[in-house]
Amino acid sequence: MADHPREVRAIDGAMEACALEVADALDRLVPSPEGPEARVFEAMRYALMAGGKRFRPFLVRESAKLFDVHEEAALRTGVAVECIHTYSLVHDDLPCMDDDDLRRGKPTVHKAFDEATAVLAGDALQSLAFELIADEATHEDARVRCELTRRLALAIGGHGMVGGQMIDLGSEGQPLEMNAITRLQQLKTGALIAFSCEAGGVLGHASAAALHALHAYAHDMGLAFQIADDLLDVEGNSADLGKTPGKDEAAGKATFVSILGPERARAQAAMLAEQAVRHLDLFDQKADLLREAAVFVINRRS
Amino acid sequence: MADHPREVRAIDGAMEACALEVADALDRLVPSPEGPEARVFEAMRYALMAGGKRFRPFLVRESAKLFDVHEEAALRTGVAVECIHTYSLVHDDLPCMDDDDLRRGKPTVHKAFDEATAVLAGDALQSLAFELIADEATHEDARVRCELTRRLALAIGGHGMVGGQMIDLGSEGQPLEMNAITRLQQLKTGALIAFSCEAGGVLGHASAAALHALHAYAHDMGLAFQIADDLLDVEGNSADLGKTPGKDEAAGKATFVSILGPERARAQAAMLAEQAVRHLDLFDQKADLLREAAVFVINRRS
Repeated sequence: MADHPREVRAIDGAMEACALEVADALDRLVPSPEGPEARVFEAMRYALMAGGKRFRPFLVRESAKLFDVHEEAALRTGVAVECIHTYSLVHDDLPCMDDDDLRRGKPTVHKAFDEATAVLAGDALQSLAFELIADEATHEDARVRCELTRRLALAIGGHGMVGGQMIDLGSEGQPLEMNAITRLQQLKTGALIAFSCEAGGVLGHASAAALHALHAYAHDMGLAFQIADDLLDVEGNSADLGKTPGKDEAAGKATFVSILGPERARAQAAMLAEQAVRHLDLFDQKADLLREAAVFVINRRS
Repeated sequence: MADHPREVRAIDGAMEACALEVADALDRLVPSPEGPEARVFEAMRYALMAGGKRFRPFLVRESAKLFDVHEEAALRTGVAVECIHTYSLVHDDLPCMDDDDLRRGKPTVHKAFDEATAVLAGDALQSLAFELIADEATHEDARVRCELTRRLALAIGGHGMVGGQMIDLGSEGQPLEMNAITRLQQLKTGALIAFSCEAGGVLGHASAAALHALHAYAHDMGLAFQIADDLLDVEGNSADLGKTPGKDEAAGKATFVSILGPERARAQAAMLAEQAVRHLDLFDQKADLLREAAVFVINRRS
């Protein structure tokens, strides 16, 4: 594999710094109580602390910077998004869903604990996200907190992330067409990525035009992200990925790569990344890391 | 079984009227979209429309009446609570949890659909509850909506409902003592009942003293409710209950009844119901249905 271009290395440093901050904040904001209910918190922390790029909190942070939002507001919102993302992984890994034993190189929650604990840990992670956002420590303006709550709930419910997972499960052995896969991915992964990009704008009382630009950016960057994911599933190795590659093909699922082939899929991802960057034209150099993030997602190896 | 005393029949009518209103509101507020994700909404509606007493929305409504809260505000909040209660039943019924085939006389969601759909339907019901509460249609004051969101999230997370379920699962075959069962039930069922009683106060900008009285009422009434539940599990029949009785004993779980015996348990429930009513002394006759509700819970047959 070719060396990463220079701008990708620049964003790597920024993302690593953000990931450390997020890990600290998770440790601070997710309780680890004593008592007989401690097991569910242990499972939540196990899943949250397994690492990962913390890409969504990074998007919250960078979109918040455009509007000079207080760092703690962006960090708490980013932690909430990471709780949601982690809950979705814990539930997706369950035997009745994707049935995965390995996540980021470690046993999945239902393997390290048990299935019931995995269901409950996912459930409590979802609640924790809303608890964090609704707390006045996140923002002094209750209207902002409500707007974040409402948008997050919409992004992850039946019209968003869960709806996408429902379509995905229904599509096994029934290969979808390009439009249907695009919609599936917009719901399953795109909606939470879009929330992450728009959250900074909501926190910063952004104009409708600025929110619209962030939404358009997230839309194209999210699809590029997903195409890269599909390419990794075909071409990656389990050491880099920390999970078993080739699962989509084995499950008979259509992906961007199975329909377009790897070369056209790669070109499509690059086109989407360029398009995503152009949506940021109304922002100054404060948006540079978001611009680089669009390139990062198509060059990542895990 | 003896005829219900007169005051219980009076509340029966009020609860039936409320249940019809809640069913209408659920039909109005829970989408039934077309498209490939429709299945998760069908499962959500299947679970929500299975009937039930709608006891928690009734508590929201009656506590809201004390403070002259707009009916739609109480109804939307009640529907949100019912979404949470229903999500908890759908997940609790899963094979990896209590493994129940029957709920309210109908196949449970994972039986009528499948396990993955049941997990997703529960997940989306939780999100929907927060979506409903955060929407400005629920209350014009965003601080009220945030306070409801925060309290609901706390009531149902690892320190509340999910924590209680975690303790319950861990206690199979390890009989708990009286204090431990009381705490388990306060988390597992008490926290959401307390939220329901306090929600009316939050919606109506109640004083700290009034909120405290509602909390104390909910605490005692909720425990009485649970003791009655344990008695029904021992003495009820599956036609009235719509589920299989005797599951706690079969699972080797300690309950109020297994520790106290039926007679002392019944006396304890009656004492708690009386105590609950006394906490309402600072309210006028507007609280009469809440007073009757405390008697209702210990006399119910399902």
